[in-house]
Amino acid sequence: MAEKAILKALAGERVDPPPVWLMRQAGRYLPEYRATREKAGSFLDLCYNPELAAEVTLQPIRRYAFDAAILFADILLVPQALGADLRFVEGEGPRLSTVTSAAEVARLRPVGEIDATLAPVYETVRILRQELPPETTLIGFAGAPWTVATYMVGGRGTPDQAPAREMIYRDPAGFDALIDRITEATTAYLLAQIEAGAEVVKLFDSWAGALPGPWFERYAIAPVRRIVESLRAAAPGVPVIGFPRGAGGNYARFLDETGVEGLALDTSVDPYWGARLQARTCVQGNLDPLLMVIGGEALTREAKRIVDGFRGGPHIFNLGHGITPQADPDHVHRLLEAIRG
Amino acid sequence: MAEKAILKALAGERVDPPPVWLMRQAGRYLPEYRATREKAGSFLDLCYNPELAAEVTLQPIRRYAFDAAILFADILLVPQALGADLRFVEGEGPRLSTVTSAAEVARLRPVGEIDATLAPVYETVRILRQELPPETTLIGFAGAPWTVATYMVGGRGTPDQAPAREMIYRDPAGFDALIDRITEATTAYLLAQIEAGAEVVKLFDSWAGALPGPWFERYAIAPVRRIVESLRAAAPGVPVIGFPRGAGGNYARFLDETGVEGLALDTSVDPYWGARLQARTCVQGNLDPLLMVIGGEALTREAKRIVDGFRGGPHIFNLGHGITPQADPDHVHRLLEAIRG
Repeated sequence: MAEKAILKALAGERVDPPPVWLMRQAGRYLPEYRATREKAGSFLDLCYNPELAAEVTLQPIRRYAFDAAILFADILLVPQALGADLRFVEGEGPRLSTVTSAAEVARLRPVGEIDATLAPVYETVRILRQELPPETTLIGFAGAPWTVATYMVGGRGTPDQAPAREMIYRDPAGFDALIDRITEATTAYLLAQIEAGAEVVKLFDSWAGALPGPWFERYAIAPVRRIVESLRAAAPGVPVIGFPRGAGGNYARFLDETGVEGLALDTSVDPYWGARLQARTCVQGNLDPLLMVIGGEALTREAKRIVDGFRGGPHIFNLGHGITPQADPDHVHRLLEAIRG
Repeated sequence: MAEKAILKALAGERVDPPPVWLMRQAGRYLPEYRATREKAGSFLDLCYNPELAAEVTLQPIRRYAFDAAILFADILLVPQALGADLRFVEGEGPRLSTVTSAAEVARLRPVGEIDATLAPVYETVRILRQELPPETTLIGFAGAPWTVATYMVGGRGTPDQAPAREMIYRDPAGFDALIDRITEATTAYLLAQIEAGAEVVKLFDSWAGALPGPWFERYAIAPVRRIVESLRAAAPGVPVIGFPRGAGGNYARFLDETGVEGLALDTSVDPYWGARLQARTCVQGNLDPLLMVIGGEALTREAKRIVDGFRGGPHIFNLGHGITPQADPDHVHRLLEAIRG
């Protein structure tokens, strides 16, 4: 099992050249993704269609032979499974019914009922585990509770996540109840992904950097620690990658206190200090996604700089954030050449 | 001179209760500001009218007796003095002519000519120095070169500062030339403010967090270090406060390598690690500006938490970012009561 490069790196081994995958590698920059997406109907139709979700997950593996495939799904499927109305407005983003009090949290569906909604996702995982090449690692994922909560409180993406921050200040008990519910649902969701065949799971906390400092421990660290502890007890040996995007000076503390096996670094992290974390973990990242649009010599130079910067310890090459629809598919080949030589 | 609380703190002294001022304290949340602004005409008319700019600077001092007044001006006056066309579109923000190549940098006005545009700002400083109460410290300021460059390259505020990042990758020599020109102009501008009576100067690097890690040293640290060294030689004893907003894990390095006397912390910095920097500097910050909208017990509690978190060393109380137009002027009184008891 530990012959897969990604699993070796997550076990603390330095792998040369580093294994590589890209956040949002199954996405709109690929013509084959756009074709399948059109066939599926809405974005949510695609998420809940196991055959087609598996197909878009496999497309970038066929094209680029990445070292990992990441399940195609969305972090807002968990709120939907808990009872939120959810739809995606083309070109704008998600809209969902809001949860802004403990009373509304109490009216969410119990965690025991989420599988009624999420079963197709587990089926996608099962298909993928059968279809993937033996050297490719299958990564499952979920949103981290804080980031999921920002959407549930705000009902959409919001500048600076102000609605969720306001709820922290005005109604901390209500916000705690919401975080607890999401944490429990996320644990169950990830365990089911693991049972279906996910070999690694990743927690995306895209808005960790928007948490006011004094609340980082309570909402970005503690819920992730609870999830990691539950997974470790129920599914030992499955590594967890944490991605507290924008955590800055809190990255080291996040690592030490959550116990994650891998730490994804955003683009702002300078290898100058990010590499110090490699003594305690496998880091993942952190090329500027803009370079996948620009390409050329700049892409080669900056990719090699990341490889060199993290050469001293376990490293999985990735971007610092998701690849964008504007990226050129040919630039991915150039990137792989820069990394793999 | 060092009897002013702000200067004591910047000299490394622990002051109890901590002195306080708020970023953007002269601003739209105050009815008297809005009245003066209307009288002045455009936002830029106000910036270049010494009597009225001094008046809006003094308004929050009269109302709240803050420990510092900060010159009323805008970080984009420097690009304008260098020859950029600049205007502010109501409700949208600044628009300015772009600079995207070394050839265009070469066509900017020489640094020796900026005072033709900026002289009214120095006059504002002179008026303020005469009018301010003896216990109030006068802070001058400028944008840090990276943040100013993001506007000059993009021609406006831009998501993630992508145009400037793109220029770094595509034309590093051209971008270096732009940073050099801004650095020289900023040094001259701050020196003139000091000659006119500024007792402290602050460099605002609002977009420091958008710099990809490997470029942080070159564009967020090196230009600030050059400015600090020039000011130290020409105007010894005038403290510089750096504000590399979003610097995260780079804050400590910024402090050590720039030599600033004060370090402003954004809201994401947890006193858990931010307080460690107080052994080497006076920190400033870092209450969530949203609390100035919310008010109430939450404001009191969170303000006291910041005071307690930084009680062990030199600290100037401030927000983690500017006060917003939605803030309630009465909440500032509540804040001061929480801090001063």
